[in-house]
Amino acid sequence: MVTMRDVAKHAGVSIATVSFVLNDTKPVTAATRLRIEQAMSELGFRRNMVARALASRKTHIIAMAYPALDHRFGFSAAEFFTSAADAARKEDYHLVLWPVGNDGHELTELVGQGLVDGVVLMEVQLDDPRVGVLQRTGTPFALIGRTTTLEGLAHVDIDFDTTVEQAVDYLHGLGHRRFVMVAGDLTDPKFHNYGPFVRSEAAYRRVSAEYGVETTVLPCADSTRAGQGAAATLTRDHPEATAVLVLNEYAALGVVSGLNRLGRAVPADISVLSLLMAPDMAALSDPELSFMRTPGPELGQLGTESLIRQLEGADPLPPQLVPADLRIGASTAPPR
Amino acid sequence: MVTMRDVAKHAGVSIATVSFVLNDTKPVTAATRLRIEQAMSELGFRRNMVARALASRKTHIIAMAYPALDHRFGFSAAEFFTSAADAARKEDYHLVLWPVGNDGHELTELVGQGLVDGVVLMEVQLDDPRVGVLQRTGTPFALIGRTTTLEGLAHVDIDFDTTVEQAVDYLHGLGHRRFVMVAGDLTDPKFHNYGPFVRSEAAYRRVSAEYGVETTVLPCADSTRAGQGAAATLTRDHPEATAVLVLNEYAALGVVSGLNRLGRAVPADISVLSLLMAPDMAALSDPELSFMRTPGPELGQLGTESLIRQLEGADPLPPQLVPADLRIGASTAPPR
Repeated sequence: MVTMRDVAKHAGVSIATVSFVLNDTKPVTAATRLRIEQAMSELGFRRNMVARALASRKTHIIAMAYPALDHRFGFSAAEFFTSAADAARKEDYHLVLWPVGNDGHELTELVGQGLVDGVVLMEVQLDDPRVGVLQRTGTPFALIGRTTTLEGLAHVDIDFDTTVEQAVDYLHGLGHRRFVMVAGDLTDPKFHNYGPFVRSEAAYRRVSAEYGVETTVLPCADSTRAGQGAAATLTRDHPEATAVLVLNEYAALGVVSGLNRLGRAVPADISVLSLLMAPDMAALSDPELSFMRTPGPELGQLGTESLIRQLEGADPLPPQLVPADLRIGASTAPPR
Repeated sequence: MVTMRDVAKHAGVSIATVSFVLNDTKPVTAATRLRIEQAMSELGFRRNMVARALASRKTHIIAMAYPALDHRFGFSAAEFFTSAADAARKEDYHLVLWPVGNDGHELTELVGQGLVDGVVLMEVQLDDPRVGVLQRTGTPFALIGRTTTLEGLAHVDIDFDTTVEQAVDYLHGLGHRRFVMVAGDLTDPKFHNYGPFVRSEAAYRRVSAEYGVETTVLPCADSTRAGQGAAATLTRDHPEATAVLVLNEYAALGVVSGLNRLGRAVPADISVLSLLMAPDMAALSDPELSFMRTPGPELGQLGTESLIRQLEGADPLPPQLVPADLRIGASTAPPR
């Protein structure tokens, strides 16, 4: 069985170039085209017709691209996914999940086959190679997230500024003045360019300065154990802090259980607020967490609608930023 | 459904001529081609043609069917999915997730398009309509789970008998004689026929009788809140129990926090053992749970291999049952 990959190898070109020829999506020099056609002929590649037919038709299938092998597919991710699948179903589309890497290589192979009408991108990086792949292959797409340059890109995202401001305002209103933020780890190569980490930390630094609170930012991995480690660090190095904001939902649970194990009462000794969390996760903690509710259900739906409107030739959905909602649980209280 | 025969008849040509046009295998005069294309258009043949063309080729894409809108896509599900995606990648396949319902309707639509080479079925019911869909459409598939009749079906699954026996043996060895099992809720129509609920409860009833322990089975939904409710019920109605086994991982966390909140010390007053759990989840509990580790990474990989071997014409993978491993945490101890 001959694949696009084989043709690419035989012709000494990339799979994307083969796809351009097959789908007629981008001009290719006559010499390259000839080489590819010769390779197809020599290898007995007979997918031309199928690929063309596919490229010109609608499958009514759309894909959500989520780098599930690099980014944890947690509660919030599951909410984005299931709400997107539900929104697609209501519009008579099927949504499937593509666990492709963030670098664009696997995405190129999959969109090159023309199996879906469009793609919803999740876990968007500030400079995201997947955007270029989708543009070059002429694949309709929408972002749940934001690249740095957004011109002309259909997108929806969390409003990190408003989310962080509400969180800080709430804790400040309770009387807290000494904060720690347990943030994303921007030194991890998987995340150094990851929009939510960069934007939430920037928003936090700006807002905490505006409110005049003393603060420290501790980077932390996205796991319960890492959160327990952060609880130990902040207890040792920042005993004066009375409030902790935690970005990652797994880390937030770890911060609470870590503080419990160190004998620091939450919220009597120290308040903990989770910055982006799904409600199911907040209920796992003792005491139950106060949290900013990730707008996963809203954004999964909006991102899908934004894509489907493009596919149906309807008016575009304007870009939308949705803040997380404050949900007060039992992990926050005025400082002693 | 429009066939090539219908197109041939409508255009007044032979089926072979239609096939030449569809597959581009032999030159056809422009006039004949036009007549065939008009016939296809008038009869609405296009999708059909593509489906056939697709049916004859390999996409190197396989789908995992998971009813994500009905069954919770939690920690353990994420482990099955990511290990399956990883196993597929190593064999040069792409695995995508299809969040289609358990009734087979959406699955029929998706496999009818011939977009994947095969399907891995998750969340298998004892009598699963999806199996019939895949058989009727000639789609290769493998089950992660077991229907009642398994003849000739490629499958891998949790070994519920060994898992439950190890769990009961461990607690019995600590000296416990009065147990409660917090089981799946078989009265919920979404789960009444769900293999893991039925098999684990049956195994538990058999094993507890063999060990001669007093026991009660409490049905419980798959949520932390429901687990907290079960903790209240067992405290009220079964105060003599010294050990609790909990099937669902969310419910298990709720049972521990529910007991904590009721002032019953875990494990001094009562031991809690989670019957199927991912390690990340066990770390969320205070005290950390003792648990049987769900073999999600192993089964995701085996299920995918089982399918890919079929696709590659290799020797079939024999059916495999994998037990969960006992991991002793801090939630179990000898009874007072």
